[in-house]
Amino acid sequence: MSKKKQKPNRPKARRPRGFEDKTADVFRTEARLIEAAFSVYDLNGFEPLQTPAFEYADALGKFLPDEDRPNTGVFALRDDDDQWMSLRYDLTAPLARYVAENYDGLAKPYRRYQAGSVYRNEKPGPGRFREFVQCDADSVGAPGSAADAEMIMMAADVMRAVGLKAGQYQVRVNNRKLLDGILESSGVPNTEDGAVQRLQVLRAIDKLDRLGSDGVEALLGEGREDESGDYTQGAKLGANAIKAVLGFTVASGTGRGETISNLEKLVGTSERGLAGCQELRDIDTILSAVGMGSERVAFDTSIVRGLGYYTGPVFEVELLTDIKDRKGRPVQIGSIGGGGRYDDLVSRFRGQPVPATGFSFGVSRLLSAMERLGSLENETKPPIFITVFDRSLLGQYFKMAEEIRAAGMRAEVYVGTGNLTKQMKYADRRGIQLAVIMGEDELARGEVTIKDLVLGAEMAKAISSNEEWKSARPAQSVVQRENLVGSLKDMLAS
Amino acid sequence: MSKKKQKPNRPKARRPRGFEDKTADVFRTEARLIEAAFSVYDLNGFEPLQTPAFEYADALGKFLPDEDRPNTGVFALRDDDDQWMSLRYDLTAPLARYVAENYDGLAKPYRRYQAGSVYRNEKPGPGRFREFVQCDADSVGAPGSAADAEMIMMAADVMRAVGLKAGQYQVRVNNRKLLDGILESSGVPNTEDGAVQRLQVLRAIDKLDRLGSDGVEALLGEGREDESGDYTQGAKLGANAIKAVLGFTVASGTGRGETISNLEKLVGTSERGLAGCQELRDIDTILSAVGMGSERVAFDTSIVRGLGYYTGPVFEVELLTDIKDRKGRPVQIGSIGGGGRYDDLVSRFRGQPVPATGFSFGVSRLLSAMERLGSLENETKPPIFITVFDRSLLGQYFKMAEEIRAAGMRAEVYVGTGNLTKQMKYADRRGIQLAVIMGEDELARGEVTIKDLVLGAEMAKAISSNEEWKSARPAQSVVQRENLVGSLKDMLAS
Repeated sequence: MSKKKQKPNRPKARRPRGFEDKTADVFRTEARLIEAAFSVYDLNGFEPLQTPAFEYADALGKFLPDEDRPNTGVFALRDDDDQWMSLRYDLTAPLARYVAENYDGLAKPYRRYQAGSVYRNEKPGPGRFREFVQCDADSVGAPGSAADAEMIMMAADVMRAVGLKAGQYQVRVNNRKLLDGILESSGVPNTEDGAVQRLQVLRAIDKLDRLGSDGVEALLGEGREDESGDYTQGAKLGANAIKAVLGFTVASGTGRGETISNLEKLVGTSERGLAGCQELRDIDTILSAVGMGSERVAFDTSIVRGLGYYTGPVFEVELLTDIKDRKGRPVQIGSIGGGGRYDDLVSRFRGQPVPATGFSFGVSRLLSAMERLGSLENETKPPIFITVFDRSLLGQYFKMAEEIRAAGMRAEVYVGTGNLTKQMKYADRRGIQLAVIMGEDELARGEVTIKDLVLGAEMAKAISSNEEWKSARPAQSVVQRENLVGSLKDMLAS
Repeated sequence: MSKKKQKPNRPKARRPRGFEDKTADVFRTEARLIEAAFSVYDLNGFEPLQTPAFEYADALGKFLPDEDRPNTGVFALRDDDDQWMSLRYDLTAPLARYVAENYDGLAKPYRRYQAGSVYRNEKPGPGRFREFVQCDADSVGAPGSAADAEMIMMAADVMRAVGLKAGQYQVRVNNRKLLDGILESSGVPNTEDGAVQRLQVLRAIDKLDRLGSDGVEALLGEGREDESGDYTQGAKLGANAIKAVLGFTVASGTGRGETISNLEKLVGTSERGLAGCQELRDIDTILSAVGMGSERVAFDTSIVRGLGYYTGPVFEVELLTDIKDRKGRPVQIGSIGGGGRYDDLVSRFRGQPVPATGFSFGVSRLLSAMERLGSLENETKPPIFITVFDRSLLGQYFKMAEEIRAAGMRAEVYVGTGNLTKQMKYADRRGIQLAVIMGEDELARGEVTIKDLVLGAEMAKAISSNEEWKSARPAQSVVQRENLVGSLKDMLAS
């Protein structure tokens, strides 16, 4: 019997569409941002919680921003007991499930923070991933404005903790109740019956930046045809209502107090509108008491926050500096996160009101915003590189590395197979500054050679001939073996 | 038209089967374990990498330990372009995909670390979850024993970094080539043809703890019927081969050198067996040079490591202390992780040899082992609790909290709605030690009251009557408002 020769059936190595590999610099920086946020949440007495990646589809609900496509936005699969499970699309829906499931066992207000991957089954695009990391803090069971104020202050403090300076960010706060009140005064009932119209109005206002006030006016009225010929139905508000809504979006004054006064005039006698004003007033009192001025937290009536589930104060964190892209064009970074009050999300499990308020930011979005602001520093130094000049001395090399690490410096012994030239190329690609070389002769003399590869590369430019280079041996020094660690420290410091 | 009354259709709040919610203490401790491991990897010059949760199913391959059930062990779904994607079941297969995909762009040896959730679509059981966190380090492109030695030393150093003491853990090293060599000498060819038999032998040895040497002897020979009546086919080795294999499993001496000498006699003239001995000798040289003795790293021929893809040195990290469960019965914790050389995993993408070696541990498994060893400390203190005695003073309360945080202590203002009694119950459930109380009168006098709830509860036991309690006001002190932070510090320190 002859054996059939097996054809090689090699799989292709490729990352799935819309997913990313995070390499060292990105990973380290994102980890630092999360750590900074966590330390703010910890200081405020919040506790961490980690829910699993999966939730039952019915428990997760359909709260994705684009509500026209329920279910299509998530990754779902059927478990072997036929139940549908979905990967979480945010960290808020799993929190609602957790609180409802463990309600009696939790001291309330229950205040937790969490960071983790969320998944969106959407068409990937440039900078738009199907897995990305969110970082959230939420209070559940706290109905008062103090919990909202706390959330807003933490948002501002997180921005400071990650290294942003005053003037580089601003938290902008609005209140859903205000618009509800204005619409109520204009004949849109503040009940389920007005829900569709209210959402249309919110979506119209959200396009203010893009369409300008004329475009928004059309969307508040009959509707609007865009350049591609697509027609969007309008909210069908009357002329007075449109005027009131447009007036509302520009009602922000220069200070928080002035804005509240403007708003009190606009909401008229609407109970809900007046409640919204009072909430902003209460938030302002607390912010002012701790000295958080309007350069860090402003009231801004143009803030919408996409999600339909917000019921009270809403806010966004905006990056403020004028930023240019690589071609020098100004880049609009916009909001890197936000949050607000959502009093109905836990209730849907329990059938009784469970007030809640939260803050969420996208870690990658914050990172790329900070990158553009030039506010990122790489704090991790490359390791000291121990070359393998003589394989029989491997034990000696590892001993050196151990000593260097004990002094708190990173160190690695070359564990590949290349000769010294190949090792130096490796070191160069790794961005290594200092390399250590020791052969039999040096070992016998109790010496080691340290090469400064960065300095060496600079000096090489100034030296014309190979001979001159060899005789000068620049950026290289011989030190006593017992002074190795000290010498490395000195060279790194200088 | 009458509107139909909507029936409430409430979803049930429940966590999917086999998944867990990690609460504060568990999350914080696991984060600390990962941080400690990362710092070891960083010091050794490894760099972090974060691959996505999904991989294409064909790229992931079928390397789950239970190879009889390929594909059933993973969570897979079909993407909208009809390609099958799977959630990663470990961090090694995605690393292989990453290296193969970015091969030319990576400086080699490529040494990376990663921690993250992995997913197994298996029947959940007690302590057996379908999502759990692994923490891995791997070198790709390093064929020599130096890379294996480095991996083994890092495993030992991670155990020290998480807080385990000498004698509480031991890294136990074997080499697949030794058994290959012994089997070769016994007539099992060291080629693809002998693969099934070799795997049967590995699985038999892996059951040494459970079945004893008689059971293993049966499995190495014709086969064995267990108590339930199930029959397992044996490896069908001859009597001499069985003797050689059983002799191998007990060949470990008291020191690494002695073990190597024993093994050199056992492998005979098998080239592969002798290569295995030389690798252990090289590893021993490096370990000994850095002073890592056999109390931390031993050579142990009974170590198997389940996965079929290992090709050279393999090792496991064992927890050593005799441990008792809650009922006083001894608990076998066993291996909390391990690793080894796998030279074929990247090659399957590239069709050329790409040597690799790695180490992996289960974070939850390490945590529960350390819990049983009593080696865990909760480093995070509960926050200082600012009660809300008078809602009109909320600004003042938040200002206090801000000052306390500025001094590095956690602090929270009560943001719920309950009265002081309810607030104290909340504080009690939160495990809070110090609570701050201030009303209008105290504000006017420039004073605050600090209550020590822990001390108060202890003293309450000793006091018989309510009147006595009220007049003594134990564990409570009035301090000047401007000395609040200092007083809290003193009380926490005492």
